[in-house]
Amino acid sequence: MIEKLVCVNCGAEYFPQSADAPNVWMTCPTCGPAEGILDFRYDLEAVRDSWLDKPLSKREHNHWRYAELLPLKETSLRTDWQVGWTPIVDAERLATELDLERVLLKDEGRNPSASFKDRASSVGVAHAMEVGANAIACASTGNAATSLACHAALAGIEANIFVPHTAPEPKLAQLLVFGARVFSVEGSYDQAYQLCSSACEQFGWYNRNCAINPVLVEGKKTAGLEIAEQVAAYGGVPDWVAVSIGDGCTIAGIWKGLSEMHALGMIDRLPRLLGVQAKEVAPIPYALEHGVLPEPGEGTTMADSIDVQVPRNWRKAVNALDSAHGRVVCVSDEQILAAIRLAGRHGVFAEPAAAAALAGVVEAVDAKIIEPHESVLVMITGSGLKDIRSSIRAGGEPLSIKPDLTSVEAAVENAM
Amino acid sequence: MIEKLVCVNCGAEYFPQSADAPNVWMTCPTCGPAEGILDFRYDLEAVRDSWLDKPLSKREHNHWRYAELLPLKETSLRTDWQVGWTPIVDAERLATELDLERVLLKDEGRNPSASFKDRASSVGVAHAMEVGANAIACASTGNAATSLACHAALAGIEANIFVPHTAPEPKLAQLLVFGARVFSVEGSYDQAYQLCSSACEQFGWYNRNCAINPVLVEGKKTAGLEIAEQVAAYGGVPDWVAVSIGDGCTIAGIWKGLSEMHALGMIDRLPRLLGVQAKEVAPIPYALEHGVLPEPGEGTTMADSIDVQVPRNWRKAVNALDSAHGRVVCVSDEQILAAIRLAGRHGVFAEPAAAAALAGVVEAVDAKIIEPHESVLVMITGSGLKDIRSSIRAGGEPLSIKPDLTSVEAAVENAM
Ligand SMILES: [Zn+2]
Ligand SMILES: [Zn+2]
Repeated sequence: MIEKLVCVNCGAEYFPQSADAPNVWMTCPTCGPAEGILDFRYDLEAVRDSWLDKPLSKREHNHWRYAELLPLKETSLRTDWQVGWTPIVDAERLATELDLERVLLKDEGRNPSASFKDRASSVGVAHAMEVGANAIACASTGNAATSLACHAALAGIEANIFVPHTAPEPKLAQLLVFGARVFSVEGSYDQAYQLCSSACEQFGWYNRNCAINPVLVEGKKTAGLEIAEQVAAYGGVPDWVAVSIGDGCTIAGIWKGLSEMHALGMIDRLPRLLGVQAKEVAPIPYALEHGVLPEPGEGTTMADSIDVQVPRNWRKAVNALDSAHGRVVCVSDEQILAAIRLAGRHGVFAEPAAAAALAGVVEAVDAKIIEPHESVLVMITGSGLKDIRSSIRAGGEPLSIKPDLTSVEAAVENAM
Repeated sequence: MIEKLVCVNCGAEYFPQSADAPNVWMTCPTCGPAEGILDFRYDLEAVRDSWLDKPLSKREHNHWRYAELLPLKETSLRTDWQVGWTPIVDAERLATELDLERVLLKDEGRNPSASFKDRASSVGVAHAMEVGANAIACASTGNAATSLACHAALAGIEANIFVPHTAPEPKLAQLLVFGARVFSVEGSYDQAYQLCSSACEQFGWYNRNCAINPVLVEGKKTAGLEIAEQVAAYGGVPDWVAVSIGDGCTIAGIWKGLSEMHALGMIDRLPRLLGVQAKEVAPIPYALEHGVLPEPGEGTTMADSIDVQVPRNWRKAVNALDSAHGRVVCVSDEQILAAIRLAGRHGVFAEPAAAAALAGVVEAVDAKIIEPHESVLVMITGSGLKDIRSSIRAGGEPLSIKPDLTSVEAAVENAM
């Protein structure tokens, strides 16, 4: 139930179903692809009526339940793809440890390709099919590419993935198994990115790139919609939602979903956002303060999903943090490793960028940004199985023993 | 709603709630732990009444919905652990390719620790808590251990895992992150196994071992219960259910679940079972024919979950295959690699033992065991992320190109 598309730069409005601008759904024609990111707006009154008519409580437990808030025709929905409605783990012991009212871990690793990005890719692939594309493309070595390859395979359309030739083998394996055509580009990530954009134009491939395709953030938004519904069973809206920030699109999407649910009256208040970045890769705090990105730094982090010195969607992230009375904290790789263990000890296996959000919560509790007895929902954006090398670093060593009971006993006592 | 426990060896019956045998729930005291495997039997009439009273259709979408068919008190159920009700992927193009009516891929990788074994471990840990154990143990390097560590972490009880010192680092990482105490035993897998059993006796740890603990198969059974319910949306009971066979407990559990649903009148017929083993590790066809295990062979397979020359539950597997008019086919590692790609191209990322089941379907179609236009449900028992090394072998190579459009075009044409 789209009302219009609004350019986040110039404010121009586009009405995709009108004869005037039938094909505008990428960037603003006036502002161009670098600045003219569009944003979908919905007729919320019509959505509310539709939800009264067909209550959410009677719908399927996946993210297609929010059909009215997705930029897809009803016939384009792929309700057979089980994306979203990921479980929340109520980490009661952890809340006690941190002196918080509640710590909820939302386990996005339970999505089809084991990350949050499945939300965006599923909506993107469904949209590609709606507009008649027979191929889809992106430049990434991470979860975005994997989720694209997975959903292209489900759909039976071609996926073209551009990666720099330095991409590690394990990252490529999943793409190749899903049958994607993987271009290993002799060049940097930026060259792979540019080549992907050119190839999309040249060959008419659908571009799965959050910075220029506003459809994708609508998929990410569904996590915010879900949180609003699911927290009813966990004491209502938490005081904070913690998310790590890479290119900025994830936190912006989650905020959009929460805001729409608030506007619809489905929740009576909004949480604050805790954005988390890596200490060595932290452009967002600067951008929050100065309204522009800093000069790109040289540092890196083990959390590759947030290892982004020049976030393409920084403005959306900053806007979300502003309107959410948000705060940003930065964490070291050591804190991230500790948070991988912390999440694991409460039953959730997190990849580094996901554990970073939890590390940020610990940091924010220490810094009294999050106050005692507040409640937090932490977005665990991807499974630890995605990055087993980091898990090995986090895990530590087993107890080496001889095969007899005395050795077991001694090892247990030593470990105490 | 347990009626009794029956010894599969001597037929003795035990009534766990009676004063006679209050603590019998492991092996048959008469036959001993090697032969006296017990089997739970339920009061199906009482179950039927309860389901009429509180219909399944109104229950939560996880495997605790089958409370009446689990060996747990109602207060012991952990409905907060989101195990089971894994999605089915209807692989339509694949069915066409194989000239089958329908190929359904049940994606067990969507469980909490990304494998089928979460079903058993969740029920096992809940039972351990019910009987007052404060620690649980097993000997394994595979999915059983990981799922145990995950659920022990969720429960906040201690997990003790015994592994041979040759266990590969990635397998240990997940266990350690989940906070398990991992004993790396200077000895073989069999020594680790024996040491685990002794330690359980010595220290009162709960033994998570399918061969002696009948509670675990009740967890595995839930996959069969689910299949019976879920296939209603996919043309009803399929002609075949395909499962790879390692120690025999998985296929036996699934068959038990299907049989109970049939006895309850929830399905009007039973599927046949297609058991799949690796060519080099195939004791079950011999056991089916001769009623005893063969001398253990020397071969191995890349599919480590089914790399079992001496299956401890072979008798249960053979019984299931017998009553299911089952067939067994054997597949090579090359066929397994091809099946990893095949599943991937239809959107499901499978570990080798899971892909083996699909490879078996292809083999059985070729051999005319599965006939044209029949329908098959394939158990994809674990995620491909569990064994990234095999995924790399299966995936193949990317297309290396220079960073220009001409190279993209040339690579696409070459790949055609
Ligand atoms: Zn504009
Ligand atoms: Zn007996």
